[in-house]
Amino acid sequence: MDIREYLESKRRIVDDALKKYFINRNLFFEVMHYSLERGKRIRPILAIASYEANGGKDIKEILPIACGLELIHTYSLIHDDLPAMDNDDYRRGRESAHKKFGEAIAILSGDGLFAYAFELLTEGDNLIEEKYRVVREVAKTVGPNGIVYGQFLDIQEYSRPNPKILRQIHYNKTAQFIALSIKVGAIIARADEKIIDTLTRAGIYLGILFQYTDDILDIVGKKEELGKTPQKDLKNKKITAPLVYGMDSARFRAQRYAQLARGIFTQLGARFEVFNQLTDFILNRTY
Amino acid sequence: MDIREYLESKRRIVDDALKKYFINRNLFFEVMHYSLERGKRIRPILAIASYEANGGKDIKEILPIACGLELIHTYSLIHDDLPAMDNDDYRRGRESAHKKFGEAIAILSGDGLFAYAFELLTEGDNLIEEKYRVVREVAKTVGPNGIVYGQFLDIQEYSRPNPKILRQIHYNKTAQFIALSIKVGAIIARADEKIIDTLTRAGIYLGILFQYTDDILDIVGKKEELGKTPQKDLKNKKITAPLVYGMDSARFRAQRYAQLARGIFTQLGARFEVFNQLTDFILNRTY
Repeated sequence: MDIREYLESKRRIVDDALKKYFINRNLFFEVMHYSLERGKRIRPILAIASYEANGGKDIKEILPIACGLELIHTYSLIHDDLPAMDNDDYRRGRESAHKKFGEAIAILSGDGLFAYAFELLTEGDNLIEEKYRVVREVAKTVGPNGIVYGQFLDIQEYSRPNPKILRQIHYNKTAQFIALSIKVGAIIARADEKIIDTLTRAGIYLGILFQYTDDILDIVGKKEELGKTPQKDLKNKKITAPLVYGMDSARFRAQRYAQLARGIFTQLGARFEVFNQLTDFILNRTY
Repeated sequence: MDIREYLESKRRIVDDALKKYFINRNLFFEVMHYSLERGKRIRPILAIASYEANGGKDIKEILPIACGLELIHTYSLIHDDLPAMDNDDYRRGRESAHKKFGEAIAILSGDGLFAYAFELLTEGDNLIEEKYRVVREVAKTVGPNGIVYGQFLDIQEYSRPNPKILRQIHYNKTAQFIALSIKVGAIIARADEKIIDTLTRAGIYLGILFQYTDDILDIVGKKEELGKTPQKDLKNKKITAPLVYGMDSARFRAQRYAQLARGIFTQLGARFEVFNQLTDFILNRTY
């Protein structure tokens, strides 16, 4: 299997599903959809991959939830890009929401995507116990004990870079949500609790790897490939892996996190092989 | 029963529960709790009143959900008050979140309260079917087909005031959420579907009444009593009931909505008498 082909085919499935949820509704849905377009869809793809690796046979079971994760990710990008936050006018290869529609509409777009995500998480009357659990897991991961807390830490000023703070930011801002994406796929596929736990642990390593490469790409990435402004962390004096460890050490540590994730995925058996490839893809990504 | 005593005793129960969810956690919880303090708690009280009127016996069943509604209401106030939105430095009798903590923290506080609300809605492993339904109802009501859409309409500029737009704004921004508060109380008390529907219909009238009095108080209210800045709608050129109908007509229409709500509550029987009193309280409120 070619991992790029795999990603591309899944991305198309996610994009089509997203369109279904946003097209031919009121004007405000069009506004929200603008920010949603052109994403890599990493989180929904992880959810689908996990659902399928865990024996899930009906992609319609996981698709609304996978889309919900992308809505939440996009909402967090919109709010992060606001002038009061990271102040970035460029996202996913074009003007960010506040640049395109103004600040008020951008704030509301984020709020709307966030709320609508929970509609998608509770679509349909099947798998109610599993989806109730998913709602709770999602709420915990994206709230004041997860992403929002990571953002809160991220915008503080620190007198000196420090591995403990870096770890807290990476864990809360990114790793928990990446791990969650894999976890919800396993929950909806009714995987064993032990497998769910093990996958979540691997997901945390994968998520920290993801943020390491993000931090590194902020320095070495190209604007056209990234679709967002590089050297923004530098400008905003963010605590990043290269800042704390230096570039060489940051690269080395990224490889180490990839190994840790791969170790667990390999142990889980051949049906999780796609996760090894996804791990390598994330390690070597240029966007 | 004295309705003010009733409101006061319920308010205290809600405040105590909220404290439990926010005290002795990380610094960010304290920041969020600042905005949460000093609310009237109308929505959680409606949820509790509905739960009890529908025969609910264990307030612990409804309390986390009632608190969740207050978190969502508070998040929407924080985001509304932002400079890019209604730009109000004063809320609940003191500095609003962005004035106190800066814009970035205010945005994140709103986001955090919103996410945390869904944690409270899914607290515990009891009543899973009912709570799954509550999550879906809440998501629909507060998202791009509800509150956020109401806000989106509210910040547009209109060439002339017009009853249809006013109705859409009132319905989406306020009435659906007031009705929802009553509805979730009934759902958690396992009320009959017919009663749930009837109560929701009355809740819409009550919610429109609530926004009428809000619009009227923006003109005639006192800052000390309101705890927020009066004449803000005027300044922000908002479409309000007095603007569309004139003050006398707006007052008359508010009374008419109160009558409509009372008519339904009365028909439902004596155990819903408290809702008649709540309706009168909202009609005559000065804050």
